[in-house]
Amino acid sequence: MRIAYQGEPGAFSEAAALALQPSADTRPCETFDAVFAEVDAGRATHGILPVENSIGGTIHRNYDLLLEHELAIVAEVEQSIVHHLLVRPGTRREDVRRVYSHPQALAQCERFLRAMTGVEIVATYDTAGSAKLVRDGAQADAAAIASARAGTIFGLDTLAAGIQDYPQNVTRFLVVARGAAPLGPPDKTTIVFTLGDEAGALFRALSVFALRGIDLTKLESRPVRGRPWEYFFYADLAAARQDPACARALVNLGEFARGVRMLGSYPRWRPPAATAPDGAVDI
Amino acid sequence: MRIAYQGEPGAFSEAAALALQPSADTRPCETFDAVFAEVDAGRATHGILPVENSIGGTIHRNYDLLLEHELAIVAEVEQSIVHHLLVRPGTRREDVRRVYSHPQALAQCERFLRAMTGVEIVATYDTAGSAKLVRDGAQADAAAIASARAGTIFGLDTLAAGIQDYPQNVTRFLVVARGAAPLGPPDKTTIVFTLGDEAGALFRALSVFALRGIDLTKLESRPVRGRPWEYFFYADLAAARQDPACARALVNLGEFARGVRMLGSYPRWRPPAATAPDGAVDI
Repeated sequence: MRIAYQGEPGAFSEAAALALQPSADTRPCETFDAVFAEVDAGRATHGILPVENSIGGTIHRNYDLLLEHELAIVAEVEQSIVHHLLVRPGTRREDVRRVYSHPQALAQCERFLRAMTGVEIVATYDTAGSAKLVRDGAQADAAAIASARAGTIFGLDTLAAGIQDYPQNVTRFLVVARGAAPLGPPDKTTIVFTLGDEAGALFRALSVFALRGIDLTKLESRPVRGRPWEYFFYADLAAARQDPACARALVNLGEFARGVRMLGSYPRWRPPAATAPDGAVDI
Repeated sequence: MRIAYQGEPGAFSEAAALALQPSADTRPCETFDAVFAEVDAGRATHGILPVENSIGGTIHRNYDLLLEHELAIVAEVEQSIVHHLLVRPGTRREDVRRVYSHPQALAQCERFLRAMTGVEIVATYDTAGSAKLVRDGAQADAAAIASARAGTIFGLDTLAAGIQDYPQNVTRFLVVARGAAPLGPPDKTTIVFTLGDEAGALFRALSVFALRGIDLTKLESRPVRGRPWEYFFYADLAAARQDPACARALVNLGEFARGVRMLGSYPRWRPPAATAPDGAVDI
C-alpha cells in the first residue's frame, strides 16, 4: 500500500495510515486536494483523510472533496490524538515566546495555552510541519504542538506531554481508493443525497433507515453551491450496503431523496490496542 | 441600537447591521468572541453574526458561541455578498502581485483568482480589513477582495466588480441580544438539543415537527466536547414558538431529546429591495 496523507512525517494522518498498515509506504502531501490528486493519478494506492475530530467537529473540506472526486471509501480508522509541547533541546519553558501548530490542535489545547502568559500563538498548516519549523527556525524561543513521534523525527524535546484539554480526543479518518473494494468485511456505509423543497423531506428520507432499525451514526449537511439554503446530506449508516435491510432502505430512499450517491461501504478499522471509545454512537 | 459586528468598517457584517437599522451605531470588533462579549457586558445592545453562507456553508464557531453565552436570537438578516477587486488608485491589473482577503471570500472567488496568474493569495481575518491593509501597505502591487463600500471607505479603486464565482451569494446573519424580545413578530425558531445513544433517536426527535407539518429549514450538528461522536443538534423551524402546533411540538420533543434549549424565536428580516431568494427552503 502506498498511502498519501496531508502533512509532514509525524502528522496524525501518517500515524493513522501506519496504524492501518505498519508496512505502508506513506507519502506526505501539502493539502487535502493533493491527497485526492495523488490517488486519482495512481501515484498512491490509497489516501487517508481526517473527516471528524471529537472536539473540533467535522473537517468539511474533505466532505466537499469526496463529492468532487470519484474515489470510494474503503475503510475508516480512528486515531487517538495526544498533543505534546515540543522545543529544541535546551529551551526551557520560561524561554518560550511563540507556539506554532495547526488551528485545530491550538483549539484542542486552548486551556493549556491560556495558562502560558506572554506567548504568541501562531497558526500553521500542520502539526508535524510546526515541529519541523521549530527545528529549522532561527530563534530558540519557539515551541510546536505536535505528536511525540513528530518530536522524535525532528529531534525535539518534550516540555509537556498530553496537553489537550480533553483526554478523549479522537480523530476519524477515511481511507479512499479508486476501486470500491473495501479493506475488509464492511459494517458501515456512507451515502450522500439532496432533498426536494418540501416540509418533512428529511424526516421521510431518514424514515427508510429508522423504520428498518438501521442506525444512523452521523448526518452532515453541506451547501449546494449556487442554490442558496439547499444542502447535500451525508449520512453514515451502521450497516453494510449488502445487508438486505440496508439494500432495501437504499432503494426506498430513491423515492424520497434526489441524486443518492454511494460513497462507500467499508469496515471500521480499530487498532488492536485501541483506547478510543467505539465510534458508533447511534443517532 | 448599538450593534457590535466582527471586522472593520465596510465589512459585510456591518452592511447587514445597517440594512437592519440604517441609523444604528455600529461597533467593530476583532473577533466573533468579542462581539458576544460586547453584548454580554452591555456595551452594545445587539450583536450581528454570520452563521451561514450559501456557498461556504455554516460558520460553526458562532453556533458554538451561541451555546457558551446566554444571549437570545432576536432577528435574522440576509445579505447579498458582492465581491470587488480593490486597489490603490493608479495600480493596474497587470501590476497586482498579491491579493488579500478573508478565507471565505477567497473561496467564493476561486475561479476568478485561478485566472490571475503569478499572484500570491494571502488569507486575512476580514474583507474590509484587507482593504485597509492595501491602503496602508508599503507596496502598490497589492489588491483586496472586499465590498464596494469598503473600497469607498478606504479610498480604493475597483479593478473588477462582482467577481464571486456564483451570482447568488448570500450570507445569513443572526442578531443577538440579552433580552429575548424579538425585533418584530417571530416566524422562525432556533433550538438546540442532544440525543440519547439509541437507533432512530434523531428520527423520533424530527417526528415531533414533521407530524405537525412544521417545516425544518436547517439542521446542524456540533460535537459535544469530551464525549466523542455525540452531538448538539441545532434546528431551525419555520414557525413562531407561540404557534400552538410549535408549542406542542417543543413539549413533545422533551420526550425524545435531552437538554432542549430555546435559542430564540424571531422574524426573518429582509431588506425592502432584496434580490436574495427567500431563505426558507424546507427540508
